Amino acid sequence: MVYDFYYWPHILGRGEVVRLALEEAGAEYRDVAREPDEPDAQRQVILDILMDTTHTRPPFAPPFLVDGDITIAHAANILHYLGPKIGLAPDSEGDIYFAHQLQLTITDLLMEVHDTHHPITSQMYYEDQIEESKKRAAAFVEMRIPKHLAYYEKILTNNPSGSGWLIGEDLSYPDLSLFQVIEGLRYAFPNGFGKAEGEYPHVIELRDKVAERPKTANYLASERRIDFNTMGVFRHYPELDPA
Amino acid sequence: MVYDFYYWPHILGRGEVVRLALEEAGAEYRDVAREPDEPDAQRQVILDILMDTTHTRPPFAPPFLVDGDITIAHAANILHYLGPKIGLAPDSEGDIYFAHQLQLTITDLLMEVHDTHHPITSQMYYEDQIEESKKRAAAFVEMRIPKHLAYYEKILTNNPSGSGWLIGEDLSYPDLSLFQVIEGLRYAFPNGFGKAEGEYPHVIELRDKVAERPKTANYLASERRIDFNTMGVFRHYPELDPA
Repeated sequence: MVYDFYYWPHILGRGEVVRLALEEAGAEYRDVAREPDEPDAQRQVILDILMDTTHTRPPFAPPFLVDGDITIAHAANILHYLGPKIGLAPDSEGDIYFAHQLQLTITDLLMEVHDTHHPITSQMYYEDQIEESKKRAAAFVEMRIPKHLAYYEKILTNNPSGSGWLIGEDLSYPDLSLFQVIEGLRYAFPNGFGKAEGEYPHVIELRDKVAERPKTANYLASERRIDFNTMGVFRHYPELDPA
Repeated sequence: MVYDFYYWPHILGRGEVVRLALEEAGAEYRDVAREPDEPDAQRQVILDILMDTTHTRPPFAPPFLVDGDITIAHAANILHYLGPKIGLAPDSEGDIYFAHQLQLTITDLLMEVHDTHHPITSQMYYEDQIEESKKRAAAFVEMRIPKHLAYYEKILTNNPSGSGWLIGEDLSYPDLSLFQVIEGLRYAFPNGFGKAEGEYPHVIELRDKVAERPKTANYLASERRIDFNTMGVFRHYPELDPA
């Protein structure tokens, strides 16, 4: 089965957690909006679906995944659907819902990260909300990064299996998403997050273990992996990350 | 089976979508943090669980639901778990994931609503971020309410069954959550949203149909239903809702 994955072709954004899972699983998939050559034509692939008036159930926004007759939108929903099919979800009912809870908490974190550079509205340019962004980013680095990362550090520390993964003995999809969070924070806030990293040794160890997985390492070194940039969720603006 | 539901006892917040589902289903549940008499003791019920160092998997935040051995956190995750058990989820796999997608989109909307009065950080008082709140609330009313509500209007209009519900023939849990969104917007932005309501006739009709369901009507008229107030997600501040 080939999965058709749709997300903005020029950013990691909210969609990268799905790409990471598909890649680590070695799943066959098309990253459909990246198939045309021209950026405008690429974006148009997404817009055509969002605007298609014959769709009775268009997605609200990308990412979305088409698997035969089923279209699944929202990154956490896609991972919840896909995880068991590609061997990246835990087995028991309690663990499955816990994995999804962790993913939803990461979803919330990504929204908070986005709002560090768009605290007023995503419909205005960053340049028109810089002063508010400075305040929000400072509060995020000071209070929200510790709140979120201390939580994952605790979950990792408490895992009775001592596997170094969030749930049980084996890697599951939220581990890959937490990897992406660390990569993003390092890119966006090298000063603010750099100082704090040492407080989350299990989280950083997880990040390193993910990076060394052969399939993921291969993906990260490939052209399929998009570079972080100032169009995505994680953005590096020096004025939001003072020394 | 009696469900143990945990959420802040003094607000509707992110937890009310779960209370609405439990009530409409006529499910037996305890609203555990509302059982003590004193507000401090009520809140302590939640804090004790969040801070319990013997929990290997504490929730990140309320709401959470305890069902026997399983603890489920995050409102959308709770509804996804609970929906089929209490007769408020659709039947087919595609519909189940679509219901969850709608709920996750409502989750995002609630986070956007929260940030209209806390655009800088939830760790500071509203009074310390009023100027930024005015900007964010104006952008929310002008651009985000139409973006979200037009989507639900389209889903309702497109539903081939013509039932007036979001999915298929029958009410499902996202319908109840959309009701809560409308109630909240009417409370928080009577001017801003009042002017726009007429553009979403199917959404308003759904709101009215939910309010007339006997069990929900009984709940809404009871003391179990908390009034909207300026501690929750939806807050009415006149300066954020100019005429």
